[in-house]
Amino acid sequence: MSETIEPISAMAAELNRLPGIGKKTALRLAYFVASMPLEDVRSLSVALWEGRKAIRFCETCGNYAAGPTCAICADAARHNGQLCVVRDPRDVAAMERMHAYSGLYHVLHGTLSPMDGIGPDQLRIKELIARLEKGDVREVILATNPDVEGEATASYLARLLKPFGVRVTRIAHGVPVGGDLEYTDEVTLQKALEGRREV
Amino acid sequence: MSETIEPISAMAAELNRLPGIGKKTALRLAYFVASMPLEDVRSLSVALWEGRKAIRFCETCGNYAAGPTCAICADAARHNGQLCVVRDPRDVAAMERMHAYSGLYHVLHGTLSPMDGIGPDQLRIKELIARLEKGDVREVILATNPDVEGEATASYLARLLKPFGVRVTRIAHGVPVGGDLEYTDEVTLQKALEGRREV
Repeated sequence: MSETIEPISAMAAELNRLPGIGKKTALRLAYFVASMPLEDVRSLSVALWEGRKAIRFCETCGNYAAGPTCAICADAARHNGQLCVVRDPRDVAAMERMHAYSGLYHVLHGTLSPMDGIGPDQLRIKELIARLEKGDVREVILATNPDVEGEATASYLARLLKPFGVRVTRIAHGVPVGGDLEYTDEVTLQKALEGRREV
Repeated sequence: MSETIEPISAMAAELNRLPGIGKKTALRLAYFVASMPLEDVRSLSVALWEGRKAIRFCETCGNYAAGPTCAICADAARHNGQLCVVRDPRDVAAMERMHAYSGLYHVLHGTLSPMDGIGPDQLRIKELIARLEKGDVREVILATNPDVEGEATASYLARLLKPFGVRVTRIAHGVPVGGDLEYTDEVTLQKALEGRREV
């Protein structure tokens, strides 16, 4: 926009790169930042840069960590033989929010996507195998997303891990709680029917 | 959230201070920033901080400027005797987007709000008077928002500026273009009726 002066349009261009922040929102935020006290902008700017620099990955599971090991892997009470495999650290946070899983995680940092050049070697699968070889794991729960790449990754891992003699499970697909049969797509409904259980 | 490590929650806390960015969005953005390449985070962080530091206000009209004078005041073709009074620089950007106004602006940097301790002395009203005293202004267009503070500020300025012998006008209130009578509130409808013109 020609009406916007350079510092503001530069801020907007950077903010526009964040997910869910379109051009209009980015410009609105840039105008807001322009009107913030200098000190507040400094602390925002520093939090982003210093925060990003402080991000480490847990050497064991691949989750975000402030040190070499994440809080979950460091918690001895959680070494219960269960390993939940997820795509990325955000999924760990989602699982943790339900407060109902007390095992460990393994973060793949992606899912198989041959079109994008992401094969097994680009994911943390070697590290997963290494953890299984130690023999402490009884069950691997495949919790990749229920989309094409997530399903492909889960099938691949299921075949790969069976020989290790561990239980390999996949999270259930079905009608979401609070959902409505009428508005549920056919594939989900079919999965819900297939996954039916006696009550 | 106890599941979120410190650098991410610190980023989220700062992002949460921006308008329209709630706790969930802030956390989602913080996770995204955590996964961005270091170099991209640096350029975001630097754009915000350097951008904010580079913001100056035009010494004449109070609009955002990269130097002592904004691009609008520096444009000799726009010195046509019209002065549009707005609350803040964002309103200048809104007016400019319509590409139909070719005069100058005067930014008040707020509106009268006795409850918040904002009286005439806290706004750029002295500067407005000084511009009128120079004698180049023929018309002052009051374009503060059509809310309580904006209307009060417009009435105040109308009384204050009349003695200078300039034409003082207020932007029209009415049904928005593309709006629907059925969903227009009574006050707006009343203003639209009062402001009716012969066709």
